Amino acid sequence: MIKLQLALDVLTTDEAMKLAEATKDSIDIIEIGTPLIKHEGIGLVKKMRKAFPDKEILVDLKTMDVGEYEADFCFDAGADIVTVLGVADSGTIEGAIKSAKKHGKKVMVDLINVKNKVKRAKKAKKLGADYVGIHSGIDQQNRGHSPLEDLKEVSKKVNIPIVVAGGINQETIADIIKHKPAVVVVGGAITGSKNPAKAARKLKESMTKRKKKVS
Amino acid sequence: MIKLQLALDVLTTDEAMKLAEATKDSIDIIEIGTPLIKHEGIGLVKKMRKAFPDKEILVDLKTMDVGEYEADFCFDAGADIVTVLGVADSGTIEGAIKSAKKHGKKVMVDLINVKNKVKRAKKAKKLGADYVGIHSGIDQQNRGHSPLEDLKEVSKKVNIPIVVAGGINQETIADIIKHKPAVVVVGGAITGSKNPAKAARKLKESMTKRKKKVS
Repeated sequence: MIKLQLALDVLTTDEAMKLAEATKDSIDIIEIGTPLIKHEGIGLVKKMRKAFPDKEILVDLKTMDVGEYEADFCFDAGADIVTVLGVADSGTIEGAIKSAKKHGKKVMVDLINVKNKVKRAKKAKKLGADYVGIHSGIDQQNRGHSPLEDLKEVSKKVNIPIVVAGGINQETIADIIKHKPAVVVVGGAITGSKNPAKAARKLKESMTKRKKKVS
Repeated sequence: MIKLQLALDVLTTDEAMKLAEATKDSIDIIEIGTPLIKHEGIGLVKKMRKAFPDKEILVDLKTMDVGEYEADFCFDAGADIVTVLGVADSGTIEGAIKSAKKHGKKVMVDLINVKNKVKRAKKAKKLGADYVGIHSGIDQQNRGHSPLEDLKEVSKKVNIPIVVAGGINQETIADIIKHKPAVVVVGGAITGSKNPAKAARKLKESMTKRKKKVS
């Protein structure tokens, strides 16, 4: 089953908690986005952990240095998955993975802005990462970039679970799930919706419904 | 005059405030380190701004996406300088610079793990960055990497103020300042010292004293 991850792209604890609460029946993973963790700090991870004991929590640290140090305090606060940048030094990725193994938790290597994504995904797998992220940044989406082509290529050539992110919505999700990612990340299409609960439910349905066979 | 920047590589507001207070007579710029901002959130920037109205405050955001969005809330909280990653999409760097211009503040493009630092430094200058950072990460220092060679090359070939960081201490600072960086960043050699105030004072003295002329 492909998991649905809600990217909390807001800035305050209050907005984040409300969105997670509204969508909890449809989402599998709560993502505390990079601006959100920088704005609210680790207290929010503890609060989320307490409020949603049955959900997976990903903290989008996008770590660029001191991989073990940053991952350590996130896992200690209750995170299940942290992210580290594929453009970081391999020592940084190893540090985050070391921390994850110590805590019995997981690491996603985010391939945002990595030139050779297939090569880096293979390296991430070799280092022991649990996921790689195929991710078009917001600043890239603003120039019309989508993660679909990279998803096709990496999913074909590297045997590692993929988390896919970058402007995915009700219109584009069908093409995305064809390539069998492990996790689909949705931000704005839920958090920017007038009815986040309904938007999340519809996306989840699109991910799980089977085409009816003609009998 | 070369400025001395204290990199607060601790995790809590309490430790950070104490270190800034202890060293304030010797330092020019207070850096809220990347793990520290992720751990404590934006409240710490506001607190620092209030406690140290005469110091420059740099928030080491190491932004990888949504450059304008992240820089905006940091400048609004009182930061004077934010950092954005050289390995990020140029659109992300442009976003951070746009925010800085809007607020009358500054951006440092951190060249950590950038392959061609001269080329990227030229691009940063062209985009309107105020500084580039020549920066050996902790995970790179652990393999014996120092920023000196990169500092030599970039300072020779690109006309942009340089912030230099990476394991700089009382022994290595003399070689560093020969290459006339705008800012020298020191972390562990101050924060890990038994007497941070004294360590900062000695470093500042090493940066400012002139060799006596033989009369």
